Amino acid sequence: MSDSQLSHYECGHCAATAGMDELIATCPACGGPLLARYDLQGARADRIPAPGRGIWRWSGLLPVPEAGRIELGTGDTPLLPTTIGAWLGTGATWIKDEAANPTASFKARGMAVAIGRARALGARSLVVPSAGNAACAAAAYAAAAGLPLTVFMPADVPDSFRIEARAYAARVELVDGLIDECGRRAQAMAERDGSFNLATFREPGRVEGKKTMGFEIAEQMGWRLPEVLIYPTGGGTGIVALWKAFEELEALGLIGPERPRLVMVQAETCAPLVRAFEAGNTQAEPWENGATVADGLRVPKSFGDRLVLGALRRSRGRAVTVSDGQMLEYARIMASKTGIFPCPEGAACLAAQVKLAREGWIGPEDRVVLFNTGSALKYLHLWPNSTHPD
Amino acid sequence: MSDSQLSHYECGHCAATAGMDELIATCPACGGPLLARYDLQGARADRIPAPGRGIWRWSGLLPVPEAGRIELGTGDTPLLPTTIGAWLGTGATWIKDEAANPTASFKARGMAVAIGRARALGARSLVVPSAGNAACAAAAYAAAAGLPLTVFMPADVPDSFRIEARAYAARVELVDGLIDECGRRAQAMAERDGSFNLATFREPGRVEGKKTMGFEIAEQMGWRLPEVLIYPTGGGTGIVALWKAFEELEALGLIGPERPRLVMVQAETCAPLVRAFEAGNTQAEPWENGATVADGLRVPKSFGDRLVLGALRRSRGRAVTVSDGQMLEYARIMASKTGIFPCPEGAACLAAQVKLAREGWIGPEDRVVLFNTGSALKYLHLWPNSTHPD
Repeated sequence: MSDSQLSHYECGHCAATAGMDELIATCPACGGPLLARYDLQGARADRIPAPGRGIWRWSGLLPVPEAGRIELGTGDTPLLPTTIGAWLGTGATWIKDEAANPTASFKARGMAVAIGRARALGARSLVVPSAGNAACAAAAYAAAAGLPLTVFMPADVPDSFRIEARAYAARVELVDGLIDECGRRAQAMAERDGSFNLATFREPGRVEGKKTMGFEIAEQMGWRLPEVLIYPTGGGTGIVALWKAFEELEALGLIGPERPRLVMVQAETCAPLVRAFEAGNTQAEPWENGATVADGLRVPKSFGDRLVLGALRRSRGRAVTVSDGQMLEYARIMASKTGIFPCPEGAACLAAQVKLAREGWIGPEDRVVLFNTGSALKYLHLWPNSTHPD
Repeated sequence: MSDSQLSHYECGHCAATAGMDELIATCPACGGPLLARYDLQGARADRIPAPGRGIWRWSGLLPVPEAGRIELGTGDTPLLPTTIGAWLGTGATWIKDEAANPTASFKARGMAVAIGRARALGARSLVVPSAGNAACAAAAYAAAAGLPLTVFMPADVPDSFRIEARAYAARVELVDGLIDECGRRAQAMAERDGSFNLATFREPGRVEGKKTMGFEIAEQMGWRLPEVLIYPTGGGTGIVALWKAFEELEALGLIGPERPRLVMVQAETCAPLVRAFEAGNTQAEPWENGATVADGLRVPKSFGDRLVLGALRRSRGRAVTVSDGQMLEYARIMASKTGIFPCPEGAACLAAQVKLAREGWIGPEDRVVLFNTGSALKYLHLWPNSTHPD
């Protein structure tokens, strides 16, 4: 394991800096999201990635001291070759299968780092607002860390998320409203009793944890990034994290200046970032009455909207929407063609690839990576009588 | 990847041998279960394990030619340290977390090998009887292999298994009866239309695939096996497979003659192998009206009973039963103490460890490995209103 080469934090909005020895959450100057910055000179001299398995191989580029590194088998998920490219007439297509993580979703990465950092810096209790998977991941890591956790989730989330989070002994508070209302409740609790708030972009650890997806893809592809990355986007931490991962790898000399075009996928019934991207805006207005079967995409307002939209534009990317019906249908298509049964959010990536392949925006020379952000097993209620036509 | 060093098959009952170029299933002489035998001289010269990831690192000791190796990210699951040993007064205790496999269970290993072998040797269609997870794993690999699959499962299996198997386009036939009746239906179909039957011990691939759990544990523990392995046992393939894995590793010189004591765990309401073990029998009578919430343990009769009981006795092991109530309770205890929410079968291992620690059969000097054979996510119906007491 490498030592963390963390040097300081920098605000993603106003570029103010902050030190690393306290459990700070957001920018002390403007309240914006903090991004971790590293001594890349030190990191270059270190061995990155370290041998072994999982996200802590990258601990030189993570803000977690050794004492905070909880081991639940997070990361090093498979990048699986598929026949999708041949079928759609695009280049070779892989699926990064994040269901192999603890609690069966990519949320494990961010929570491993956020909770590891919080524990190492003295947090005594935790709180998180979540539309689903983040709650379960937080609950598992909080249990492993021995820290009490309170979760605020919308009252209408599928039972699966509630049951799983409670199994880990998290206190689950069901809220009438969406993730944004849950966020307000979590923030109020943090201010009231000092619980550390793990909300997306409200602390710097979750972006750092998700960054390891970008590191792994680069390594798994022999440090030759794909031409197109398609990513399902709720709050957008993943988009920001992937972009940051590639910048850090370039600074270390592991990759060159080439970047994939990033494709952000949202549900057509909850697409605040897509709307902002298409309107040429740098910030996103909240989406009213957002609703979709893909709980991870039911995010009406992103606190990191400026960072997400900026990364997408710098990549010469695209922002597309898909319908709930398409997600359900493409989940079954992906399952029967590849042996990977994705969550609706993962299926949305395949639907987007089909759309962009038909438009010609993804061509035969474009190698594509789709993200399956989690397991379909928490969403089985969506396919109650699923049979394939003969 | 190594070449397979398979040399022939040998009957586990009568020791008759059979060649390796045809898709044979059971012993041509007596109908018993076939075990794969390797040219260990050749294997020793080869590089085992090969670098990389997953079960195909061990392909020198698997009966699958390169053309049959389907890649869904099977194997190399984490061996997670826990605080259970300190809590129970046993030695250090790890959990081998098989939920990280494709389709979230250990069944992926056996199906990867069985279906890979079947495809490479010319199978055109597949059939499998299953109490749950095996159907889902077979369906995923059949989809990836492009082979049609028919599943026979008890009509009262939880919806989760049925929905998941169908998502992969498997044809699911629901049967009034238990796994043994499903087995008869599958065998009849195989005889009728030539579909290759993937039933446990009815073909040699599944034992070989599960063997990789033993290989991985040995490697992950630095080739120093634990003193006690606790394994939830339905048909018993895993017990046979672990024992075979250790024999092969010793023949290769990777470990010495030391062996863990194997603990077999069954449900107290369906415990044919435990009953036979305690009675000193070499074979097990079928259990009448077996029922348990742990679908993987609802196996009233094992076709490999002689092999399972033999391996358990040679290891100086134990056979214990736990109740359904204990499984549900220990799943929540494991989740809240370790961050790993196990399936009921995995929870049964912790319940068994508690029992054997109290008896003193597992002591402070005994390092213990528990198997969590799959994810709790297919069993969430068992904890509908789960809350932990404050």
